[in-house]
Amino acid sequence: MTRKIGILGCGHVGSTIAHQIIIEGITDTLVLIDPDRDKLSADLLDFQDAQVNLSYHTKLIANDYSALSDADVVISAFGNITKAWETPTDRFAEFPYTKKYVEEAAPRLKASAFKGVLIVVSNPCDVITSIFQKITELPKDQVIGTGTLLDSSRMKRATAAALKIDPRSVIGYSLGEHGNSQFVAWSTVRVLGKPIKKILKEGAYPNADLERIDHDSKMGGHIVFFGKHYTNYGISAAALRLLKAVLNDAHEELPVSNYYQPLDTYLGYPAIIGRKGIIEQLQLDLSVDERTKLKQSADFIKDKTKEALKKNTE
Amino acid sequence: MTRKIGILGCGHVGSTIAHQIIIEGITDTLVLIDPDRDKLSADLLDFQDAQVNLSYHTKLIANDYSALSDADVVISAFGNITKAWETPTDRFAEFPYTKKYVEEAAPRLKASAFKGVLIVVSNPCDVITSIFQKITELPKDQVIGTGTLLDSSRMKRATAAALKIDPRSVIGYSLGEHGNSQFVAWSTVRVLGKPIKKILKEGAYPNADLERIDHDSKMGGHIVFFGKHYTNYGISAAALRLLKAVLNDAHEELPVSNYYQPLDTYLGYPAIIGRKGIIEQLQLDLSVDERTKLKQSADFIKDKTKEALKKNTE
Amino acid sequence: MTRKIGILGCGHVGSTIAHQIIIEGITDTLVLIDPDRDKLSADLLDFQDAQVNLSYHTKLIANDYSALSDADVVISAFGNITKAWETPTDRFAEFPYTKKYVEEAAPRLKASAFKGVLIVVSNPCDVITSIFQKITELPKDQVIGTGTLLDSSRMKRATAAALKIDPRSVIGYSLGEHGNSQFVAWSTVRVLGKPIKKILKEGAYPNADLERIDHDSKMGGHIVFFGKHYTNYGISAAALRLLKAVLNDAHEELPVSNYYQPLDTYLGYPAIIGRKGIIEQLQLDLSVDERTKLKQSADFIKDKTKEALKKNTE
Amino acid sequence: MTRKIGILGCGHVGSTIAHQIIIEGITDTLVLIDPDRDKLSADLLDFQDAQVNLSYHTKLIANDYSALSDADVVISAFGNITKAWETPTDRFAEFPYTKKYVEEAAPRLKASAFKGVLIVVSNPCDVITSIFQKITELPKDQVIGTGTLLDSSRMKRATAAALKIDPRSVIGYSLGEHGNSQFVAWSTVRVLGKPIKKILKEGAYPNADLERIDHDSKMGGHIVFFGKHYTNYGISAAALRLLKAVLNDAHEELPVSNYYQPLDTYLGYPAIIGRKGIIEQLQLDLSVDERTKLKQSADFIKDKTKEALKKNTE
Repeated sequence: MTRKIGILGCGHVGSTIAHQIIIEGITDTLVLIDPDRDKLSADLLDFQDAQVNLSYHTKLIANDYSALSDADVVISAFGNITKAWETPTDRFAEFPYTKKYVEEAAPRLKASAFKGVLIVVSNPCDVITSIFQKITELPKDQVIGTGTLLDSSRMKRATAAALKIDPRSVIGYSLGEHGNSQFVAWSTVRVLGKPIKKILKEGAYPNADLERIDHDSKMGGHIVFFGKHYTNYGISAAALRLLKAVLNDAHEELPVSNYYQPLDTYLGYPAIIGRKGIIEQLQLDLSVDERTKLKQSADFIKDKTKEALKKNTE
Repeated sequence: MTRKIGILGCGHVGSTIAHQIIIEGITDTLVLIDPDRDKLSADLLDFQDAQVNLSYHTKLIANDYSALSDADVVISAFGNITKAWETPTDRFAEFPYTKKYVEEAAPRLKASAFKGVLIVVSNPCDVITSIFQKITELPKDQVIGTGTLLDSSRMKRATAAALKIDPRSVIGYSLGEHGNSQFVAWSTVRVLGKPIKKILKEGAYPNADLERIDHDSKMGGHIVFFGKHYTNYGISAAALRLLKAVLNDAHEELPVSNYYQPLDTYLGYPAIIGRKGIIEQLQLDLSVDERTKLKQSADFIKDKTKEALKKNTE
Repeated sequence: MTRKIGILGCGHVGSTIAHQIIIEGITDTLVLIDPDRDKLSADLLDFQDAQVNLSYHTKLIANDYSALSDADVVISAFGNITKAWETPTDRFAEFPYTKKYVEEAAPRLKASAFKGVLIVVSNPCDVITSIFQKITELPKDQVIGTGTLLDSSRMKRATAAALKIDPRSVIGYSLGEHGNSQFVAWSTVRVLGKPIKKILKEGAYPNADLERIDHDSKMGGHIVFFGKHYTNYGISAAALRLLKAVLNDAHEELPVSNYYQPLDTYLGYPAIIGRKGIIEQLQLDLSVDERTKLKQSADFIKDKTKEALKKNTE
Repeated sequence: MTRKIGILGCGHVGSTIAHQIIIEGITDTLVLIDPDRDKLSADLLDFQDAQVNLSYHTKLIANDYSALSDADVVISAFGNITKAWETPTDRFAEFPYTKKYVEEAAPRLKASAFKGVLIVVSNPCDVITSIFQKITELPKDQVIGTGTLLDSSRMKRATAAALKIDPRSVIGYSLGEHGNSQFVAWSTVRVLGKPIKKILKEGAYPNADLERIDHDSKMGGHIVFFGKHYTNYGISAAALRLLKAVLNDAHEELPVSNYYQPLDTYLGYPAIIGRKGIIEQLQLDLSVDERTKLKQSADFIKDKTKEALKKNTE
């Protein structure tokens, strides 16, 4: 059957994801949902003008939840940049707004009888992913957040820059919350055939150290945010990678926000991704310190989720 | 040697073009120039974060004109959306700003000893293309505006929608100014193996007529502009198509802004595009009415260009 | 749902089509059917070795007709090169062999309950397409031969070479049988914004004439055949283009072998291609001479088809 | 400047590599060299017929060594399948033939003043790479064999099949000769975030063991070879990956045949690949057993190379 993908929220992130999907010819039909009808109509026509000069043809549908019933994947990309921008160091500043959206969008998605995989990009990613799963009642394995896939990419970018190698040749994960409590699990990071710690100890890169890389990795995010008040290209590429792994049933390993039973919460942790969503979760041998950080990050996400759901029922 | 492309101006349009270039892996090195250093650093890092999850590797260089000396193609994409937005029906509202930019950028591009093909997306496209050519003193054939390539795409989009066919199966051109005086040369438009006028006369599409298609084609542009205050996806795809024709030395036929000797001005008119820019210009058999419209459009462009250059020397 | 494509026959043509599908990441699952189990296992493993270094993941299934039940598109690519090679000027030399295959494959395809679009590459293309449709009892619009799409491509290649332009900038069709009775409908061929006949009359290309282009176009096929005893790259690209138009429901115009009611036979004639196969057939204004050639070509196809089906029931 | 790639030898492997390059639009100009002029002309026309329906335009040049002077990369893909097929277990059966070719081609390549990166696919890969370097006198870092990049891909394919994951999620290398003395360096192989030995010990994959994976990995090669008497798709994807890393100056880590100083020979060993070829060689922490195997493999390559060069000067 025809491939069909839906995107909830077509702001900076959603429309960039849509653009990349259209350019790469990933889908036959793309359903775009956004409350700002004028902006959505504008993007839709702009995409159609683009298609005249592209290699693939993509059918575009606007603001029709019922069209999501047979979608393969739906991507939630709504957000509120303005609010986030006012308190940029806190991803939860956006929360009141994305929470409102998810509470509106999730029941409508459920009502559409959508049975595919839901990918959540909206922030705070782990909490919104959790709420989406609860409201839609989709199996936990079918609701995935991009989570620390972007943080891991930033760690790879910073590591690669320090060692002058291709970021795709860096192995490893950032874990936990897609937010301030996330951390690089350095025990998992490998470059040039060895653990990065060993490489740095060997002394060939005197100007590189983990703290500086960690700092560059995180500062990168801030530079992007302060420079243009939103981020879209990095997150779009991460979302597309996850999307393709689902569509192709690739069983590719990616660190994403998925339900982690030992700590009873969604959080960024590597898993095998396929057509059914999470096929299998990795079981990392983390250091004691990393396990502590993961628990702290999990606690933070759980508190915020509980708080959110509590307010909800008050 | 390495492929190298430069982009002057990384606002909505420039950064979208850069993104598409990076996603499609068109170049080895991409030089981005923009006076807003914070925004540029933000985009640059965001692109680097994206590359971790893309198929190609692209080296990015920021704000270094000297790096353009051996570029294959430079794309001028600067503009001033805010000003354009205040008087959206007039593409010349942006002119004082883009004129200032071109007068600053063109001498620096010339000073870099750039000898490749210059593609101009900045508006008013035909005038800015002309000024760029005059200041850089590059051969006229090496300075090309996207011109009515976008208008032609919009005509194809509207025609295709009316006949329920793929826009890539519509043949024909919009000619003249990339602005209000442009017109669809209906004598050149063919669908389903015949001139569109004949197809419509045959009666199989009772709800389609040229005026409506023309209106939809132009309204499209306004809907995009009013809906999001800029356009980026359609123009990006048009620029990429032109870019690839140049890089591949494809000798592909495209309606672009190029110097049209009979009317002594740059204007949108089909030409054969290759590594040296304009390889050959078509010689259309236009109707009397279309020839008149082309002359009127040319006169408008020439007046505006003269005016601009006059003010320049005052 | 997952995209699924099947290929019947994995010789030179079938495996090249499979390769291009895998490289471009067109499908999630690819079902390959071939009686030569050793060759098929070899290709399958070779494709899997390739996928380690490709951008997309494609699941491969071998020799399972039942897996075709929910395929979107099945491509018939079987043939017998050796036999064809013995009498290369006659595409019907292959017929006894492809006829045997189609009589074996078509009932099994029917039994699989396949309900998608069937694309026939096997030669003699128009006759095999017709037999496939009769045996499978799929709607006529869902059974399409690549037909003169390849001949049209060769005409474009030869025309482009004569005029030093990109073959993608040549418009027009070769019509009729994908075989010796096919002909270029020169009345439909346009380059540089005009009918090719007019362009040649205007005298800018003194060394180009229709006869020579026609000859180069046809000789090309022979050079390929005599040089390597089969053709695969040109036909693969043609099949992929048709395949994408179906999958994307693009409504793209392509000259393919489809049922032409006025002459009651499958033959090469332009049509609009979409998810349901043939969406609409063009109605060309051919010259008297072209209409005669089309009828002659149709008569030839009809005779051969009748003959084939007669032998079948004896 | 224009991207230019050359291919020496257009048999099964060379023409498949050419096809993938053309489909992916990797280059602007492709120079194909082969003594069988009829086969080459056939492939060339077949590629041109294909380009009518592809997204990119590639200029093709046949049998012109002088056109290689400014090529970015030249790929040696000549071989003699028939001879190899007679004694398939011995990659050196092909040697008398490829040796003859390299002794003819290398001086002509040198005479062309080619200064780019030379990628050698021809077998026996490590020996031919070494001879090419000696004759062309190109810097050692600019002459690279695909070597165990293909063996590593096969190991990943077999490992991935055993664990039901994407082969792109398997990390690790096969080292040494691209031939019978090669071995999987299991100490480098990691899956699911851990060394594969640990994963297998943990017991979640009772049916997977290293010996079986190793066997499947190697048998795969034989199944391909016995099934179709040559391999082309896997090696083409490997060559393209290496090619892109060079063109993009990606600094990507890949196990390829490169000069390994400690054992004074070309052999398969991971390195960082960029525009200048080998940018940096990894320094693996191999086990004692693996170091022994690497030395044995190196000795074998050195003996064969010495023997070859000796015969040469007799």
